[in-house]
Amino acid sequence: MTDINQQIILNSRPDGWPAPENFKLIEAKIPKIGDGEILVRNLYMSVDPYMRARMNDAKSYVPPFQIGKVLEAGVVGEVVKSRNSKFKEGDVVVGMLGWENYSKSDGADLLTVERGPVPLSYYLGILGMPGMTAYAGLVDVANLQEGETVFVSAASGAVGSVVGQIAKIMGCEVVGCAGSDDKVDFLINELGFDRAFNYKTCGSIPKKIAELCPKGIDVNFENVGGKIMEAALWNMNDFGRIALCGMISNYNDTDMAPGPRGMGIIIQRRLKIQGFIVFDNPKLNMEFVRKAAVWLEEGKLKYRETVTEGLENAPSAFIGMLKGENFGKQIVKIA
Amino acid sequence: MTDINQQIILNSRPDGWPAPENFKLIEAKIPKIGDGEILVRNLYMSVDPYMRARMNDAKSYVPPFQIGKVLEAGVVGEVVKSRNSKFKEGDVVVGMLGWENYSKSDGADLLTVERGPVPLSYYLGILGMPGMTAYAGLVDVANLQEGETVFVSAASGAVGSVVGQIAKIMGCEVVGCAGSDDKVDFLINELGFDRAFNYKTCGSIPKKIAELCPKGIDVNFENVGGKIMEAALWNMNDFGRIALCGMISNYNDTDMAPGPRGMGIIIQRRLKIQGFIVFDNPKLNMEFVRKAAVWLEEGKLKYRETVTEGLENAPSAFIGMLKGENFGKQIVKIA
Repeated sequence: MTDINQQIILNSRPDGWPAPENFKLIEAKIPKIGDGEILVRNLYMSVDPYMRARMNDAKSYVPPFQIGKVLEAGVVGEVVKSRNSKFKEGDVVVGMLGWENYSKSDGADLLTVERGPVPLSYYLGILGMPGMTAYAGLVDVANLQEGETVFVSAASGAVGSVVGQIAKIMGCEVVGCAGSDDKVDFLINELGFDRAFNYKTCGSIPKKIAELCPKGIDVNFENVGGKIMEAALWNMNDFGRIALCGMISNYNDTDMAPGPRGMGIIIQRRLKIQGFIVFDNPKLNMEFVRKAAVWLEEGKLKYRETVTEGLENAPSAFIGMLKGENFGKQIVKIA
Repeated sequence: MTDINQQIILNSRPDGWPAPENFKLIEAKIPKIGDGEILVRNLYMSVDPYMRARMNDAKSYVPPFQIGKVLEAGVVGEVVKSRNSKFKEGDVVVGMLGWENYSKSDGADLLTVERGPVPLSYYLGILGMPGMTAYAGLVDVANLQEGETVFVSAASGAVGSVVGQIAKIMGCEVVGCAGSDDKVDFLINELGFDRAFNYKTCGSIPKKIAELCPKGIDVNFENVGGKIMEAALWNMNDFGRIALCGMISNYNDTDMAPGPRGMGIIIQRRLKIQGFIVFDNPKLNMEFVRKAAVWLEEGKLKYRETVTEGLENAPSAFIGMLKGENFGKQIVKIA
C-alpha cells in the first residue's frame, strides 16, 4: 500500500454533453482518519445518469458537484482502517464515497454487506439503488397489479432490466425498448420480456408500441423521456400510471426540452404521472433486497454488467453510459 | 305551448376556434314520449370547456358530437309530461340533455332536485359538475392538507372559483390567476383569495407565481395548461400535486401543443400530475353537494354567474366562454 490516493475531480461544468476535459485525475495522499472514522479501500464504483444533473449548478434533491472537488459515486469498498466501533478491518461497505482509491468516512451512511455467492459489484446494481428504484417504481408509485401491461424504456439498462423481470415475476405482460438489436435480443431471450423493439430502427415509435401492446399500456416505467415518453403516453390505458424515474434523453440539453405533445390525454384517460427517487422509501428498499436475493438464487432474476477497469477510465465509462454504449449496469473496477 | 321545438345542431366540425357557422338552429316538433319516458322543458343549460373536445372527431371519455345531431349539455328542466313512475309533472331534473327547448328522456341519468332558496341554475355550476370537479380535485386527487399553498388557474371560472373557496375553508393559502383586473379584484375582495394576478399583464408568470407563493406551491389545481401550467410546475414544492382538470389553452390548437419545459423537475421534486374527471367518484360528488349547500347557506361559498338569454345565443355564449369573456359560470337561460 503506497500512500498515493488517485482521485477524479470535477474540472469544469459541462455545457451539453460531458467531455473528458470536464474531469481531472489528480494524486493526493491517503487521508488520515480521526476518532470515529474509517478508511475504505474502494473496490467498485457505479456511474449513473443522475450524476449528469449533479454536474450542473442547479438545485435538486442532491446538491451539485463542486468544481475542484472529488466527485461522488455509489461505491463498494473494504474497510482497511477503523477507529469506529461499528466497523472492523475487512468489513465490506456500500455507500456514497469518492471517485478515488481510498475514502475516509464517519460511516453514518454506509451499509455493511456480507461477502457471499453474489459478486460485490451487485450491491451497486441489482441489489443496490438501481434494483431498489425498479421495485419502488413498480410497487409503490405505479401500484402494479397482476395481469397488467408494463412498458419500460431503456429496458436493458441497470434499472430497466430489473423492472421488466420484476413485472414478469408479478404476472404482467412486459414490453421494452432499447437502442440496439443485441439489447432487444437480450431482453426477449435472456430476461424473458414478452416483446421488445429497437427504438432507433423501428420507424414510428407510437405505432410500434401500439403494435406490441395491443391491450394498451397500464404502467409505463419511464427512464428516457422525450419522444419515447410521448409515444408511451399516447398508448396509455384509462387510469394508467407513469412512474417517472428518469429523462436521460434530456440530461444533456442546453435548452429546456418541452414535454410530450398531447398532454390533454392525461385528463381524458385519467392518467397519473409521478416522479420518484430511490431514497423516498427506505423500508421498501430493504423489502426489495430481501426478495431480490432469493430471486437471484432461484434464477428468476438475471443480471448483466459492463465492467470498466481502472479509476482513470471512470469518466469515459460515465460518458459512454450516457450515450448507451454499455450493456446492463455500468460499473468501474477500482481495485 | 306550441308544438315547435327549437334545437341547435352541430353543423360542421371546427378547425381551431369554433365559429358561429359550426352551429345551426333548426326547428323540429316537440317529441312524443313512449312508455317509461318523460318530456322535459329545458330551463337553463350550461356551456363548458370540455364541449370543445367533443366537437372533434376523436376518442375521449365521452363520444364526440355528431354532425347534424342536436348538441348535448348539462340542463336543468321541468318535467311537463311523464309516463315514468319515478317522475311526475312539475319535478325539476338535472342531467345531460339537448341544446333545445324540449328533451325526451328515459330518466335513467337524471337527478331530481328540490326547488328551494338556491336558484335552479346553481345545479349547473356550484352545486353541479363544476363544483363537484373542484372538490374531487382538491380532496381526492390532490389530497389537500390544512396549511398548504394552493395555486389555481382560471381562478374566477366555474371550477376555479369553487376551488379557491374550498381551499380557504380547508385552511389553506390560496393564490389564483385570471385574465382581467376585474376578475383579480373579484378573487381577492369577494372570494377571499389571499393573492391573485392578471396573467395577461403581469410580465413573467413564473416570477409572479414565485413572488405570490413565497413558500412554493403544494397543490396546483390546473385548468389552463400551456405557459401557466409550466410556470406553476417550476414553482412546485417537493411532493407537490398537480390536479390536472383542464387545458383550455390547448383546446383550439390545430397542432398538438408540447407539454411544459423542464419536466425533469417532476422527478427532482417527486411531483404527481394526475388527470381526472368528475364522473370518476360519484360518492364524493354527493358528499360535496351536501357540504356545499350548507356552505352556501352560511355565506362561506360565494358564486357568480354570467347568464345569456335565449337558446339561439348558446353558440356565442359558448365561444365567448372559451375566450374568457364570461365572468364566473356561463349559463344560457332557455325558458
